[in-house]
Amino acid sequence: MTKKIPTRLYLSEDERPRYWYNLRADMRDKPDPILHPGTLKPVSAADLEGVFCKECVKQELDDTTRLIPIPGGIREFYEAYRPAPLIRAYFLEKALETPAEIYYKHEGTNTSGSHKLNSAAAQAFYAREEGLTSLTTETGAGQWGTAMAMASAFYNIKLTVYMVKISSEQKPYRKALIETYGANLIPSPSNTTEAGRKILDADPGTVGSLGCAISEAIETAVKTGKCRYVLGSVLNHVLLHQSIIGQETKIALDKYNVTPDIIIGCAGGGSNLGGLIAPFMGEKLAGKSRTRFIAVEPASCPSFTRGRYAYDFGDTGKTTPLIKMFTLGSGFMPSANHAGGLRYHGMNSTLSKLYKDGFLEAVSYVQSDVFDAAVQFAKVEGILPAPESSHAIKAAIDQALECKRTGEKKIILFGLTGTGYFDMTAYMAYNAKTMTDYIPSDADLERGFATLPDIPQNKP
Amino acid sequence: MTKKIPTRLYLSEDERPRYWYNLRADMRDKPDPILHPGTLKPVSAADLEGVFCKECVKQELDDTTRLIPIPGGIREFYEAYRPAPLIRAYFLEKALETPAEIYYKHEGTNTSGSHKLNSAAAQAFYAREEGLTSLTTETGAGQWGTAMAMASAFYNIKLTVYMVKISSEQKPYRKALIETYGANLIPSPSNTTEAGRKILDADPGTVGSLGCAISEAIETAVKTGKCRYVLGSVLNHVLLHQSIIGQETKIALDKYNVTPDIIIGCAGGGSNLGGLIAPFMGEKLAGKSRTRFIAVEPASCPSFTRGRYAYDFGDTGKTTPLIKMFTLGSGFMPSANHAGGLRYHGMNSTLSKLYKDGFLEAVSYVQSDVFDAAVQFAKVEGILPAPESSHAIKAAIDQALECKRTGEKKIILFGLTGTGYFDMTAYMAYNAKTMTDYIPSDADLERGFATLPDIPQNKP
Repeated sequence: MTKKIPTRLYLSEDERPRYWYNLRADMRDKPDPILHPGTLKPVSAADLEGVFCKECVKQELDDTTRLIPIPGGIREFYEAYRPAPLIRAYFLEKALETPAEIYYKHEGTNTSGSHKLNSAAAQAFYAREEGLTSLTTETGAGQWGTAMAMASAFYNIKLTVYMVKISSEQKPYRKALIETYGANLIPSPSNTTEAGRKILDADPGTVGSLGCAISEAIETAVKTGKCRYVLGSVLNHVLLHQSIIGQETKIALDKYNVTPDIIIGCAGGGSNLGGLIAPFMGEKLAGKSRTRFIAVEPASCPSFTRGRYAYDFGDTGKTTPLIKMFTLGSGFMPSANHAGGLRYHGMNSTLSKLYKDGFLEAVSYVQSDVFDAAVQFAKVEGILPAPESSHAIKAAIDQALECKRTGEKKIILFGLTGTGYFDMTAYMAYNAKTMTDYIPSDADLERGFATLPDIPQNKP
Repeated sequence: MTKKIPTRLYLSEDERPRYWYNLRADMRDKPDPILHPGTLKPVSAADLEGVFCKECVKQELDDTTRLIPIPGGIREFYEAYRPAPLIRAYFLEKALETPAEIYYKHEGTNTSGSHKLNSAAAQAFYAREEGLTSLTTETGAGQWGTAMAMASAFYNIKLTVYMVKISSEQKPYRKALIETYGANLIPSPSNTTEAGRKILDADPGTVGSLGCAISEAIETAVKTGKCRYVLGSVLNHVLLHQSIIGQETKIALDKYNVTPDIIIGCAGGGSNLGGLIAPFMGEKLAGKSRTRFIAVEPASCPSFTRGRYAYDFGDTGKTTPLIKMFTLGSGFMPSANHAGGLRYHGMNSTLSKLYKDGFLEAVSYVQSDVFDAAVQFAKVEGILPAPESSHAIKAAIDQALECKRTGEKKIILFGLTGTGYFDMTAYMAYNAKTMTDYIPSDADLERGFATLPDIPQNKP
């Protein structure tokens, strides 16, 4: 008799992952290299070390080492809030009357409210190990800023967070949470940097943007002694840290002989999706599984489903190195979609390559459909999901309903990246039926593509 | 060699509690009976069944059955968010440089954000089992209202929540969360009840009070068919449900041969404290342990430390049965202390009896000291605590520092009842250094005591 799978699939202390998994090492066709925007040559470690911590640069450029040990000083912090619960969605299955099995990895039980803490811990730890005394970063929706504030408090590093001005005003509680952990929060644009002053001179009433906040954070990091910049998604070293999500999930599922047929994650910059799927994708690349992988994005910012595969800047200020990725163009202006964490024009280069090569699928949804799924999930599973995570929920429900139609007993796994505690204005709009959907027109997209760099590598 | 205690002490599936523990059964000297306010005789089940679910009434009046099985339909729901993490506070111990061992039970990882869900699940389940179609309740700070909304959505029962008007305005996100789970939220006082209309007629601009919201909820429950009232603390059946906290904690600690020297919990109505200490207190009453138990309350609402042991009403409207308890008088007006969950004039009768008989100690703190402790804890342990829970943190830190002074290696356990996500205005006041402390004068207390019922049982 097979033992019934419990609602929560635990990992004992001895079973916890001690390595991050570097998926690129197992890709025959690697992602294209990051290019220096001036020379258009692949960047060197030295090019990046002025901005990022050395260890993060080393990890960023390493596409051959499969397993990278998680230092004890980081595992110690992970122990405080991990393993994240892996939950069998019995209640959701019952509500949907589906023959499918649904599982989700719940990254929202820590105070930062999302998976972002996994990489924040790593980056703050390395900064301290390398003798740095301060870090800078930017935050939009606020999840990354909170995670970095927590990690910086824990590892005793000073942190300056440039928070998009309109977000700092619309989300005073996020701002307060970041400040409670001791970070210096500066609404961006600010007069603390040249980049900020330039924007303020041109448009004193601007509400700010993530691109501008990135420019300010990088400028301050470069100009300050023993200070570096940290980023919460998009880059490959961030995905590496997030592979803890997939590693824990796979170890737990393997214990119960569960192999997912479909793995689903929401995708903004790609860190959660990349982290969740990493070890499963490794098996697929090795021909050991037939698992399908689905990235879910908002219809308002459809980098996979309607974007182009090209070299592009990571920021709207066009100051970063060039990354080969699916992108809407750094000048694409996403609408004020509530899923703040998915409002990014590009996508991690590894995931972009996998999508290009057919290993990864993508779908997009409008947000009112996403919130329908979120509330349905909240009522039966008891967890209020973040708007970002709810994209994955929507796709999982659709797949489960497809199983109901066909009678197939598929195994569906999705990533629940975080909780919606700081997104109540979005739920209020949903409850009041004032939520609007937005799908960019082809002309909107063309305006974004027109901002792609005009370089030989982007010619057909 | 003793195995090092992990940061998180897990319970396997087989180890989960299947019984609530009814501490009163093991008390030689029982709490005094609840009295009917008209006859001043002990209430009967029939007296209470017009207001509460039958099973809750049975549990309320049962002071002899030690172990009460948790029905499968409730355990199923508990599985979705329990066991709550039991955490060794290694980081806090290190920060304090104390020889003490510190443990805490973290009840804040579910969406309601607190331990309240443990009793909400039970009460909603029983209501459905008894064929009821709706429930009413009140909420002040909002934790109980959220918990009941979640449980009612799960068990498919309609819920009306009377939320203190000023709270519904000051905490729009709490209100939205309760509404997202499908509850009908009515700011109190309202014109939906006679009690509400009477208060509005007398004072149209009133901001409302918990006492008034209770009166409205009870009136609606009694007047509506197949509807009952549910309460989140104070009563003994609520403490019974909360014994799941102590049961899980004790099983886990016993596995590691850890016996607490001191157990600490914050105390408002007493449900968290009573639930956490129950099985440990049982051992003490049986002479099997020397554990000390400490209730922590705000200096602004000191029912244990400055209250009287007397029969009193549970609500300010003086409509409930009379409970023998430590109380400040139902007419005591607590200041607008941020720890909303601790602003109650009375205390559970079982805890009151134990305090009277010397088995339980109590201390009080002003809130600025409590928030100092909260932020210190948040930075090293990574969890932003609720203001209520932070009272317990403050006491635990004080005990650990006392160990540092004396060199004693005591084992300290405290209850972390919830997270502070919806209390950011309090943290903002703390960060801005605008938080004020309030200690009632003796004259303030006398005004409260003057509202105690003038009945023979309260004569010396």
